Amino acid sequence: MARPKPLSGFPEFLPAQRMIEQTVIDLVRETFELHGFAGIETRAVETMESLTRKGEITKEVYVVRRLHAEPGDAGDDLGLHFDLTVPLARYVLENSGHLQFPFRRYQIQKVWRGERPQEGRYREFAQADIDIIGENTLADHHDIEAPLVMLEALENLHDRLGLPPVRMHVNNRKLSEGFYRGLGIEDTAAVLQRVDKFDKIGPAAVTELLTGELGLPDEVAAKCVRLATVCTTDDSFADRVAELGVRSEMLDEGLEALTNVINAARAQVPGRMVADLKIARGLDYYTGTVYETELVGHEHLGSISSGGRYDSLATDGKRTYPGVGISLGLTRLLVPLLAKGELTASRSVPSCVVVAVDAEETRSTAMQVAAILRGRGIACEVAPKADKYGKQIRYADRRGIPYVWFGGIDGEVKDIRSGEQTMADAAAWLPPQADRRPRVIAVGD
Amino acid sequence: MARPKPLSGFPEFLPAQRMIEQTVIDLVRETFELHGFAGIETRAVETMESLTRKGEITKEVYVVRRLHAEPGDAGDDLGLHFDLTVPLARYVLENSGHLQFPFRRYQIQKVWRGERPQEGRYREFAQADIDIIGENTLADHHDIEAPLVMLEALENLHDRLGLPPVRMHVNNRKLSEGFYRGLGIEDTAAVLQRVDKFDKIGPAAVTELLTGELGLPDEVAAKCVRLATVCTTDDSFADRVAELGVRSEMLDEGLEALTNVINAARAQVPGRMVADLKIARGLDYYTGTVYETELVGHEHLGSISSGGRYDSLATDGKRTYPGVGISLGLTRLLVPLLAKGELTASRSVPSCVVVAVDAEETRSTAMQVAAILRGRGIACEVAPKADKYGKQIRYADRRGIPYVWFGGIDGEVKDIRSGEQTMADAAAWLPPQADRRPRVIAVGD
Repeated sequence: MARPKPLSGFPEFLPAQRMIEQTVIDLVRETFELHGFAGIETRAVETMESLTRKGEITKEVYVVRRLHAEPGDAGDDLGLHFDLTVPLARYVLENSGHLQFPFRRYQIQKVWRGERPQEGRYREFAQADIDIIGENTLADHHDIEAPLVMLEALENLHDRLGLPPVRMHVNNRKLSEGFYRGLGIEDTAAVLQRVDKFDKIGPAAVTELLTGELGLPDEVAAKCVRLATVCTTDDSFADRVAELGVRSEMLDEGLEALTNVINAARAQVPGRMVADLKIARGLDYYTGTVYETELVGHEHLGSISSGGRYDSLATDGKRTYPGVGISLGLTRLLVPLLAKGELTASRSVPSCVVVAVDAEETRSTAMQVAAILRGRGIACEVAPKADKYGKQIRYADRRGIPYVWFGGIDGEVKDIRSGEQTMADAAAWLPPQADRRPRVIAVGD
Repeated sequence: MARPKPLSGFPEFLPAQRMIEQTVIDLVRETFELHGFAGIETRAVETMESLTRKGEITKEVYVVRRLHAEPGDAGDDLGLHFDLTVPLARYVLENSGHLQFPFRRYQIQKVWRGERPQEGRYREFAQADIDIIGENTLADHHDIEAPLVMLEALENLHDRLGLPPVRMHVNNRKLSEGFYRGLGIEDTAAVLQRVDKFDKIGPAAVTELLTGELGLPDEVAAKCVRLATVCTTDDSFADRVAELGVRSEMLDEGLEALTNVINAARAQVPGRMVADLKIARGLDYYTGTVYETELVGHEHLGSISSGGRYDSLATDGKRTYPGVGISLGLTRLLVPLLAKGELTASRSVPSCVVVAVDAEETRSTAMQVAAILRGRGIACEVAPKADKYGKQIRYADRRGIPYVWFGGIDGEVKDIRSGEQTMADAAAWLPPQADRRPRVIAVGD
């Protein structure tokens, strides 16, 4: 068999890179759990009916079919989920009788999209989502809570693992929609859709779309574009909006809600959130606060964490389930940092120690030493061959394993980086904390 | 939307059940890492060419296709992996230049099979695999190591989480094949295939197959069946085989290898392994030691952990990659125990504490208390509504959260199980260790 080639759009990691991804996932999960979010996993497949309810998404779906399925076989009309929100909606409806609301859940899983692969776009990628789902109602303070939990997770990745800091851009759909209504615009969604292209095409082109395609008067279009340019690190965005002289009840609601989010974030994670009134989140089902997040210094990656408030995640006729959620694109965040070598690992294996083997006859002694070390939480492996010691040290060195153990339980341990070798008792010796587990190393550390 | 129904063969867990699965996965991963296995994940899809190389497997494959793929589109000839071994073989070939051999890897992922769903058979299920892969050669002692690592993981699940104990049944293909050859049989695979049905159809039916279908003389068939009945908890199986008066070099090799495995297991995990000479592992690619594992008291589930030695996982023409591996069927192990209620969780959410809210105006104080507790590793959530305290306590109770915090940082904490309420400082209070995280509770605990 010739050497297989990678599949475009399906990134895979070498062991050291996977260790970094796992460390990121563990830390994100820890943050979510500290905030009381329960983890769930949903099956990889949903019915095509459930996946294609929003027509415009169908182009990205991977259909799944048994190789020997007969046409019309029940249960074979399936596709891979393209996000974790559609599965959550289905899970909530299916299990509503067994869940407590508000239901706080996190979900860290792969999703699949049949998109054309390009930088930052993958066909298989991992997401980490949090959502808070209410039954019929959900208090507004969860709009503040959700982004703060995600920002805390991202701040932990920055502080503890050295990932770049982030900047979360927040808006409120009611603010934009209320503003447009205050201007007498009826098809507010059409305006939102065009303003959403602001970053890509710039203010002049957006103005042209608004006056041309939508036939808005120049003055009205100009105000829509001026609203989109408002971006502040504090609650002064409200004054900037007031200067535009537009009023509506919905606009006031949106301004108040956004003010609360921005002020809470300023208090808890200063400098990480901005009010950015051009954020629209495309054609999504959001109805209130919306979030997007840039990685500082890597803005070209686009948003690595997005979400918002939706008034109806799902409904079963009797009850509706409003929610607020935010998703972290793990693959989108990590693949570029790993590819550029901005994140590396201190070693490619969990082992902290290689226990050397004198001769095959004494392998059981080495195994005993290893068992004692493991019992004390020290990851180790026994050398695979009773080679000359130099070769066994090279075995450790090639994997980045810092220590080699010689002799029995009362033996000697060599730090192969310094060459220092000391007497050691397997039942008592401890490596320094920093050597216990492989570490994530960020450029600039 | 009507309430969706579960998809047969695609089990999903409620949050408390998922917490149990996650705890099992964490513990298994910890054991694997202590033994120096590095985690990898492979993409969910492989090329159909790679999946169908073993013809008899094709019937189980799920084909994956972009909904709007044109016929003949490149990169769309894909299927979901049905195990983690085919992907490992491809990963090793693809990345051989970047891996260190022997390559010790674990992999915990979902796999998919288009099989008819039935008890113990799923269309989507999770596996936890360990494999040790050599480059051209791999020492025999890894045949001992692999099952001992898996038995240690299973023993940890038994000791720490209360899962049932296991019994691993081990044989060696060389032993069986060498025995058949010593009897003058040429098509040893045909005999192995029929002996593999021993547990299902019994000795009389196997004898009939051997004499009927294969035309073996009665005496020869009888010896094959007698070999299959040998099952010992120590190395006395070798004496039992000797009594049958068959000799061959390959048989001696197999006997010695199996003796080494059994004796090592007796020393390290007494009572958990038996030599069972009817174990064949079907038509798999195994060439040496083979493993199957029963859950004691749940033998009807079949093997929950299987594997073996293979002389060639993959080859690129220049090099071959022999290996030994063993796989744990997480879904197969857990779904029945969860369904029967033999494993439950102490609560359905990670939160240890609900911080009560006096009035919406003091929500920020409650958030502050929660932040201090979290900073000390105590998972908590702030009550979603400033309801009467009784209602906030019920909020905690319905989720199994043991503590409710009242007042500010210098507040009071109530254990809602005992009703005891005490003064507490958020910066110093610690719940008992057993309450810190949700616990897995096994029937009989």
